[in-house]
Amino acid sequence: MAKAYVLGLDFGTNSARALIVDPRTGAEVATAVAAYPSGEAGIILDRKDPNVARQNPADWLTAAAKCTRAALRAAAKVKGFSPRQIIGIGIDATASTPLPVDAQGVPLAQHKKFARDLNALAWLWKDHTAFAEAQEITEAARREHPEYLAKCGGTYSSEWYWSKALHCLRVAPRVMDATANWVEQSDYIPAVLTGNPNPATWKRNVCAAGHKAMYHADWSLPAADFLAGIDPRLSELRRHKAYDHAVTSDQSAGGLCPEWADKLGLAADTPVAVGAIDAHFGAVGAGVKPGSLAKILGTSSCDMMIHPNTQPLADIPGLCGIVDGSIVPGCFGIEAGQSAVGDIFNWFVNHFDKGDKAHATLAAEAAKLKPGESGLLALDWNNGNRCLLVDPRLTGLLIGQTLHTTRAEVYRALIEGSAFGARIIMQRFEEYGVPVREIINCGGIAEKSPLVMQIYADVTGRPMKISRSAQTCALGAALFGAVVAGSAGGGYDSVQEAQARMCGLKAKVYKPNPKHREAYDRLFGLYRALHDAFGTRDHQASLHHVMKDLLAIRDAARGIGQKP
Amino acid sequence: MAKAYVLGLDFGTNSARALIVDPRTGAEVATAVAAYPSGEAGIILDRKDPNVARQNPADWLTAAAKCTRAALRAAAKVKGFSPRQIIGIGIDATASTPLPVDAQGVPLAQHKKFARDLNALAWLWKDHTAFAEAQEITEAARREHPEYLAKCGGTYSSEWYWSKALHCLRVAPRVMDATANWVEQSDYIPAVLTGNPNPATWKRNVCAAGHKAMYHADWSLPAADFLAGIDPRLSELRRHKAYDHAVTSDQSAGGLCPEWADKLGLAADTPVAVGAIDAHFGAVGAGVKPGSLAKILGTSSCDMMIHPNTQPLADIPGLCGIVDGSIVPGCFGIEAGQSAVGDIFNWFVNHFDKGDKAHATLAAEAAKLKPGESGLLALDWNNGNRCLLVDPRLTGLLIGQTLHTTRAEVYRALIEGSAFGARIIMQRFEEYGVPVREIINCGGIAEKSPLVMQIYADVTGRPMKISRSAQTCALGAALFGAVVAGSAGGGYDSVQEAQARMCGLKAKVYKPNPKHREAYDRLFGLYRALHDAFGTRDHQASLHHVMKDLLAIRDAARGIGQKP
Repeated sequence: MAKAYVLGLDFGTNSARALIVDPRTGAEVATAVAAYPSGEAGIILDRKDPNVARQNPADWLTAAAKCTRAALRAAAKVKGFSPRQIIGIGIDATASTPLPVDAQGVPLAQHKKFARDLNALAWLWKDHTAFAEAQEITEAARREHPEYLAKCGGTYSSEWYWSKALHCLRVAPRVMDATANWVEQSDYIPAVLTGNPNPATWKRNVCAAGHKAMYHADWSLPAADFLAGIDPRLSELRRHKAYDHAVTSDQSAGGLCPEWADKLGLAADTPVAVGAIDAHFGAVGAGVKPGSLAKILGTSSCDMMIHPNTQPLADIPGLCGIVDGSIVPGCFGIEAGQSAVGDIFNWFVNHFDKGDKAHATLAAEAAKLKPGESGLLALDWNNGNRCLLVDPRLTGLLIGQTLHTTRAEVYRALIEGSAFGARIIMQRFEEYGVPVREIINCGGIAEKSPLVMQIYADVTGRPMKISRSAQTCALGAALFGAVVAGSAGGGYDSVQEAQARMCGLKAKVYKPNPKHREAYDRLFGLYRALHDAFGTRDHQASLHHVMKDLLAIRDAARGIGQKP
Repeated sequence: MAKAYVLGLDFGTNSARALIVDPRTGAEVATAVAAYPSGEAGIILDRKDPNVARQNPADWLTAAAKCTRAALRAAAKVKGFSPRQIIGIGIDATASTPLPVDAQGVPLAQHKKFARDLNALAWLWKDHTAFAEAQEITEAARREHPEYLAKCGGTYSSEWYWSKALHCLRVAPRVMDATANWVEQSDYIPAVLTGNPNPATWKRNVCAAGHKAMYHADWSLPAADFLAGIDPRLSELRRHKAYDHAVTSDQSAGGLCPEWADKLGLAADTPVAVGAIDAHFGAVGAGVKPGSLAKILGTSSCDMMIHPNTQPLADIPGLCGIVDGSIVPGCFGIEAGQSAVGDIFNWFVNHFDKGDKAHATLAAEAAKLKPGESGLLALDWNNGNRCLLVDPRLTGLLIGQTLHTTRAEVYRALIEGSAFGARIIMQRFEEYGVPVREIINCGGIAEKSPLVMQIYADVTGRPMKISRSAQTCALGAALFGAVVAGSAGGGYDSVQEAQARMCGLKAKVYKPNPKHREAYDRLFGLYRALHDAFGTRDHQASLHHVMKDLLAIRDAARGIGQKP
């Protein structure tokens, strides 16, 4: 194999990262991050409506050029490195983050006419404005096409493609009239980099399509007549402003166009892989294989497994999706996750800590506590529940406070709540025939918080392994850059082959402490009771209405539109 | 009426206050506070067991001398004032705060042998170590003497006289062996000031006896054979280390003894009234009359009403007690309250605020929020629930947090939770034929927090009046000093006569904002649902075990004795 490098471009919630990797070893030669300049850490909020979370697509491109250039400068210190040695590029992005583009593929956000319109921006994954539309779509699909839901956990989410499209159609018809295509971020960026000016011909990744848009090889996107039953305009969008076919990320989206070759400082025609969702590439970068649960722990979590598509696999209710080829071609990709993990810890530190040393101080104090000692229990729903309840209209709960409760106790309870949520998801995988033989953690929290990792081990009773790479999403993207280059181009012909060379684990493993087992099993029982009482309709404890009513009252007080 | 003054001595949780009052006008001539020197703000805690709250009785005496001397020095600036003009002294104290004394009335805490024994100290009202004993006593009384419970809300509390005695008997038999009398703070202090060296002859106030020890004129203290069924040692204590008769505070405990006349700087033989519980005197000082709800708002709250003893009055389940003469002679005194009010707000500010300007900053931000806007709801049970559930084994709950929830929102939710708790108590009075025609607030929070007062008005839908005096407990004590002096001694012959001259209201009244009514009614419905689900056994929502299990797990982790 000739001396070669691959580039991974990872578009996160707040910034983009470029990672240059040696495909022979997985050695990470250089990396750089560029923050999105708009809004609050790249997120455009609406003071009045906390459900709103939008993004300026121009930020992605600005940040892509900036971080790639910076990574190349850093790599230049490596002896003999040349940008010309980059043989392939992979791209991942958040999802579902759809945006409206015009017939030339230009985001409407860049049209002067829509410069001040929040609805013409990209609808970031964590935007929850479409919660009512999600319910409508779920109910319609339950009646008419349960198979659509069976592959995405039984409930269609407010975070996803069609919910957001429907909400945009209703609240901003002017935007939708001007839209030629309603496209995912992970398809938009490869299209821009390959210079494709016709959105109708853009390659669509099966990862976002399958997990977020009810796409399936057997039926493509949901049928237009089904969508027409919900809203005729949605059916029009399906027919003329969406797509019919989606592909896996081992395929090429095209070669790098001269304009972007120039902007990035790379060779024109370098192959660019079809995109995917960041966490899915993260699982690949973590070395996911059948039996591995890859947990990408960041602001939220994604819990990813794969299962050979030659073996039977039941539908798994409450998980986010089962999509053939969404993680590794030839395997079902199974996605689950928690709507907020690091976001909850950060919220607490930012709002309730004295601000001296933040996480480090609290974690040191919290580490001294025994399981159950604080008498506290928390539900991890400050950003809703993504799995198993698939309900954005759930909120946080903290119970057990006394007059002696300390910040460190609450901090630990929030971590434990997150761990209980993780345990519920792990159990669901196993209940449906996907045994969890190892857990590989990656992402910021896995790197930075031994306390969180130890509590996860203690609560689940499983060893927590840590991916060798601190940036598995970008590594996964780079890995697909190697795959799209192919062995002929200096890369690999399969994901498995690339993983064997490029992925690994850290020596440190967090082992469950058997002394903590009993207390955590008891606490988990209580977590489960609160989870079912507040999260399900049919539990005998009729508290299901409480959080919803609170939110309805809050929205009424703020003058935010009610659920129809 | 000759020129005369009265002295009120108010023994609170953290300090003692002396107040010198002109009985002709209620004018507060001078006041001074002396903090208790021991422990944390006068409370001796056990790092291991958060239920422990003890007090050093020597602190009370030190503080009494210090604050009286200081008040006299301040009064000396008033033209023509002389300590000789003090015609009567009234004393109130916390309850139930029993302590063990020897045959000479000396606290065991002052015996060298018990110098390091927490159980020989006074058992402060907020000590909750006896929660299991309280359940035992409750269950026995339900079976054998339901009339004992009928007058104290249906449940015997862990905060009270017999629970603490029984717990002390069990955990510290050595202490109880050395005890000659198990006496309330509000009887101990008048006995010391009047120099009575024989606890068997100390006058006992019907206020503490009736509200905390199941005393009733019809049967005296609970029967020895009933107590023997719980524990023979408790029956022994009843027979030999308690009392048989209790009296109202318009009676004299005796004249100030020479030793204490000297320590305080007052004339010997000045009449000292029989003591009472601080909040009961507070209600008197606030000007309570039939139809008035006097709310003493401090670290906890006491909600006091009176009802003429010539008119029928049902037993009221869930309130703390109905005792003839406990507030005003000739009336039933009805006590209710919340286990923590200011304590919760202080806990939050001390632990979770950035600490810049504490209450003031948070209150200013919280005042800008509309009812319901935060989506938050809190139960006010951080120190258990005193009324209606009478259950110290309940804890706090906060629900509705998102990733945007702020400190000020939580602060307001805690205030609202407290107001909902207050509304539940007010409703209970009215459901049982004691109409609430006005609400008079007093105590630190009524003085200092317009936000709390406005939220109380909005949540209950009633105007909130404020007592003219900022220290109604001490004023009530001073008022009983005037009554015990009698008209012949320059005072008054009845409480009503004294109240007419000495009590009043501030001009400021907090009126309910009708715009806030609907949101608060809805939130109150949710509060009630959580209250019943988490606080009662028979609610269809079977969550009653959750907080208790959490506490049991906490206690196990800390190695604290379990419920037998």
